[in-house]
Parts: sequence; structure tokens; C-alpha cells
Amino acid sequence: MTRPVVPDSHEDLLTRPLFCHLGTVRHDGAPQVNPMWVLWEDGDLSFTTSTTRVKYHNLQRDNRVSVSLNDPEQPYRFLEVRGRVHRIVPDPDGVFFRRLATRYGRELHGTLPPDVATRVRLVIRPEVARWQ
Amino acid sequence: MTRPVVPDSHEDLLTRPLFCHLGTVRHDGAPQVNPMWVLWEDGDLSFTTSTTRVKYHNLQRDNRVSVSLNDPEQPYRFLEVRGRVHRIVPDPDGVFFRRLATRYGRELHGTLPPDVATRVRLVIRPEVARWQ
Repeated sequence: MTRPVVPDSHEDLLTRPLFCHLGTVRHDGAPQVNPMWVLWEDGDLSFTTSTTRVKYHNLQRDNRVSVSLNDPEQPYRFLEVRGRVHRIVPDPDGVFFRRLATRYGRELHGTLPPDVATRVRLVIRPEVARWQ
Repeated sequence: MTRPVVPDSHEDLLTRPLFCHLGTVRHDGAPQVNPMWVLWEDGDLSFTTSTTRVKYHNLQRDNRVSVSLNDPEQPYRFLEVRGRVHRIVPDPDGVFFRRLATRYGRELHGTLPPDVATRVRLVIRPEVARWQ
């Protein structure tokens, strides 16, 4: 069972290179949300971040996330996926970062981000989805 | 001081009728995020919801929110505003709902949502912003 929760009707919101909005919980219990690249593969959602980011520290304390997307052409079509960090894969050479950059049409011109040494791939396993 | 935290450079993300993604905290402490209409007025962010929604119950327990937006034309321009519910104004006649629907170009054809009797306007006072 590789896709337990995301309905076929809304999977395009994850396969198209749309920005999603990733929610985590801060040290004081307040929510934090920001736009992110996402890759949907083998039933998991993957993100690139750095171990220096607040979001990463949030997830070290509480590995639960919520991911929200809507369709730019039909904004009332939306998908929320909630789940947990399942794996964190170091990406010090930016291999996964480059893969996401290519998916989102970001020209890197051979450069990598200045924080590449601390880059990681966050792999989220979906648990619940809501959609409309 | 009507706009303490949102920089002039990114205020257009709130004045244009862009969907934002609103994060709240669920009963079990996990984050929840979903797309919402928003109105930026007098330094506050207002949303329409219903007292029957999970989001409303989340905010009854913990009034902290995070609001994330990015620019559809320049998706790396983003704004996150964090704040708290400052006021909840009943909207049983859908006056505020209609105002937001008009702002977002949603044709109502004289109808109101079936849950109009439980509609409320949530007024959020910003406390912190992040942008890029």
C-alpha cells in the first residue's frame, strides 16, 4: 500500500510542481507555516531543508507536519496531508536539492546553495488527508 | 501603529486577493493547515469560518495562528505572519462572508453558504512576520 491516504482525484496537486505550505509546531507550541518545494514519491512527501532552520529544529522536537496545497487554476480544489517525519537523509552534496530545483524549473547555473553542507531530505509519511 | 509587523515591500501579498494558508494547532498538538480567503484591514487579518469547523475549535483552545502566502508570479517572494485571534464577530447574515466572496470574485448568485447561521469573522492581530 504505497498511497494510503491521498485520493487519486487530487494526486495531481502533488505530481505537478506546485508550491505547498508546510506547517510545523514551534518550541512554544505555536504553528509555523511556509512555502516549500515538495516531491511525491513512493507514497511519501519529501522536502529539502537545512539543519540550521527553525523548521528543522521544530521537527526534532515534534515530527508532525501538515501540508496544504490548492490548485492555482481552480483554487477551491485543495488538499491537506498530515503525517510525520519518517526519515531524514543527509544531502551534503545537494543531490536531492538539485533534483527538486530541476522539478521546479529553478536555474542553478552550476551553483549550490550556501548552506549545502547542512542540507537534508525530510521524508514525510502521510497519515491523514482532507480534500475538497 | 496599525501595521506593526508586515513590511511595505510585502504588503501586496495581503492586499491582492491571494489565497493564504492558515495554520492552527489541533487538539493533540499537531499542526493543521488549509487555504483561506483573507482580508487585510486596519493592521489585522480577517477570515470567515464557521463555529462548526475543526479550525474554530482549534482556536478556542489555542488562539495562535500562522498565515503563509507566496506570490504566484514570483513564488520565492513569500510572507509568513504569526499572531493571535483578537476578536470573533458573529456573521449570521453572511455580511462579512459576502464581502470576502466579492473580494475573491466568487459569484454567489444571491445565495449564502448553508452554514451561514454559524459563520463568524475571525480577526487576527499580527505579532511577528517573516518574509523573503
